[in-house]
Amino acid sequence: MEQLHTSLAVEKAAQSKIDQVDFSKLVFGKNFTDHMFICEYKDGKWQQPRVVPYQPITLDPSAKVFHYGQAVFEGMKAYKDANDDIFLFRPEENFNRINKSSERLAMPAFPKDYFFEGLTTLLKLDKEWIKKGNGNSLYIRPFVIATESGVMASPSMEYTFMIICSPVQSYYGGEVKVKIADYYSRAANGGFGAAKAAGNYAGQFYPTKLANEEGYQQIIWTDDATHEYLEEAGTMNIFFRINDTLLTCPTSDRILDGVTRKSVIAMAQHMGIDVEVRPIKVSELVEAANNGSLKEMFGSGTAAVISPISGFANKDQFWELPKQESPMAQQIKQAIVSLQYNETEDPFGWRVKVD
Amino acid sequence: MEQLHTSLAVEKAAQSKIDQVDFSKLVFGKNFTDHMFICEYKDGKWQQPRVVPYQPITLDPSAKVFHYGQAVFEGMKAYKDANDDIFLFRPEENFNRINKSSERLAMPAFPKDYFFEGLTTLLKLDKEWIKKGNGNSLYIRPFVIATESGVMASPSMEYTFMIICSPVQSYYGGEVKVKIADYYSRAANGGFGAAKAAGNYAGQFYPTKLANEEGYQQIIWTDDATHEYLEEAGTMNIFFRINDTLLTCPTSDRILDGVTRKSVIAMAQHMGIDVEVRPIKVSELVEAANNGSLKEMFGSGTAAVISPISGFANKDQFWELPKQESPMAQQIKQAIVSLQYNETEDPFGWRVKVD
Repeated sequence: MEQLHTSLAVEKAAQSKIDQVDFSKLVFGKNFTDHMFICEYKDGKWQQPRVVPYQPITLDPSAKVFHYGQAVFEGMKAYKDANDDIFLFRPEENFNRINKSSERLAMPAFPKDYFFEGLTTLLKLDKEWIKKGNGNSLYIRPFVIATESGVMASPSMEYTFMIICSPVQSYYGGEVKVKIADYYSRAANGGFGAAKAAGNYAGQFYPTKLANEEGYQQIIWTDDATHEYLEEAGTMNIFFRINDTLLTCPTSDRILDGVTRKSVIAMAQHMGIDVEVRPIKVSELVEAANNGSLKEMFGSGTAAVISPISGFANKDQFWELPKQESPMAQQIKQAIVSLQYNETEDPFGWRVKVD
Repeated sequence: MEQLHTSLAVEKAAQSKIDQVDFSKLVFGKNFTDHMFICEYKDGKWQQPRVVPYQPITLDPSAKVFHYGQAVFEGMKAYKDANDDIFLFRPEENFNRINKSSERLAMPAFPKDYFFEGLTTLLKLDKEWIKKGNGNSLYIRPFVIATESGVMASPSMEYTFMIICSPVQSYYGGEVKVKIADYYSRAANGGFGAAKAAGNYAGQFYPTKLANEEGYQQIIWTDDATHEYLEEAGTMNIFFRINDTLLTCPTSDRILDGVTRKSVIAMAQHMGIDVEVRPIKVSELVEAANNGSLKEMFGSGTAAVISPISGFANKDQFWELPKQESPMAQQIKQAIVSLQYNETEDPFGWRVKVD
């Protein structure tokens, strides 16, 4: 890719708005830092990358993102250790995935140096927004939207790549009861469920609302053809502990290749836990729940790292999971979180210092 | 629904930009009229509906439409007859469907009186943009987008409903060769393929681009589980003529309930053509092509009404369709278009005069 512009332009905010934010009462993803990264694509290339004060964007009502859903994103986090050093967790995974998502949606790849120079500059400018202490972090949202005007249903010729950042606290979702999908689906075989694309989320809200009304917080998605195989938990990947084995299904066209998912697998193996990655049937889960071998279920994702599930419903039946003295979910979460906050060694090379 | 505001506010454009548009060289969906309709949803209700000069919209970078794809739309047209009267074609169908699409994406329904008062007012203000003569029309794009700020993956609490209008000419797509999908898919069983949702389009662009590179203009989508059943043609519904019978597949979770599709079915039946609505296998199409009983294939949609297909590929084989002296596609299209332009009687009650 030809790169006309190699240096990042930086315009600092006249005044920080950090004093207006109560960091003890953060709502997930509601407050944003003083700056944002932005880079526009037109005439076949990415233009000057810029860090500018956080501000609204203006688009024509016919911009393609509003009509044809060409929009992909990532979720990642920055952490501060006791020495005020800032760390990212496996950021190359997110960079690679946003370009993979873009490809599936016929959108152009973003240059790696633009991504990392932009992200690093942004984090340094807004470093006061990253608070120390367990659970505090900066949620980072890179995203790309189609901005060309015109309502012809074809790929946009213009895009905007942005990174916005939001300070967050430890995410505790409470007791999560889930319902196994037996009618609605998240993704098609041969579709774009593996992409982190905007369109994969809108379709989940209505079935989830129906599940909420029945008393369940999330849906366990199953394969759309038969609803016999377990696939994802809400917007997270899913894990099952049967006796002392940790199970999760393989990624596919329909399943997101989660960074936390692969970190959980690697960390569990590192901890000596037996991990099986294979298709898992709803009927196997029900059988394990009935015979007492199902010990734990949890979702994995950037926001919560691991979100334990307390029980599941399949059709008209509900199973409460047994309480564990030392849940595997908690042990793995602690190991990953300690690594993220630079409290332990990093045998994997996952932690990347921002400097 | 409680309606606080019952009267439409109208702000006229200071000056028309109609003189800047060359109506003999229109690109589909690129030019927009002088005004647009806009209505915002917040605090649990739709606010003051307004017709204002066509203008950009400004959103926070965290607006949910950019991240989670809550966006639905409609496509409809207005026509002018020889007496300068303006007509819509089955507009209630579009109104009902946008609310059905919204429901599937957990978005609020839009009030019927707001929709029709807004649309009618807009058409009267911009009536000079609707040109007389066969093929000329005004393409109308109602759409709804999620506008609430914040990157939590949950349904937006704020939305914007808009109608924008674009003058268009007769749409001729040229010789359309299509490829039957055997890997990629458009929609999931239990998904939102039946909704006119932004997310259904972005996922089609990449597979279509691959087909384009092989020399095909569109993809015939098949069911995602087996790829054995024919479902849609690109962004259109699909019809097959086998001998003198017209076939199309039934609508489902995965297939859009097209207004043109149902108009084609009704018009064909009215013309005495035998129509079968039933699942159609790829193997049946191949067999009909091989034994010579496959006479025509065409897509149906608002933009082109009917778009004839000249040949199709299945895996590595290509079939050229026979040329017809008086294609059924052309006869049905002519009958529908004449009705739309108020050139013939309307036994169905489809034509709605704007006054």
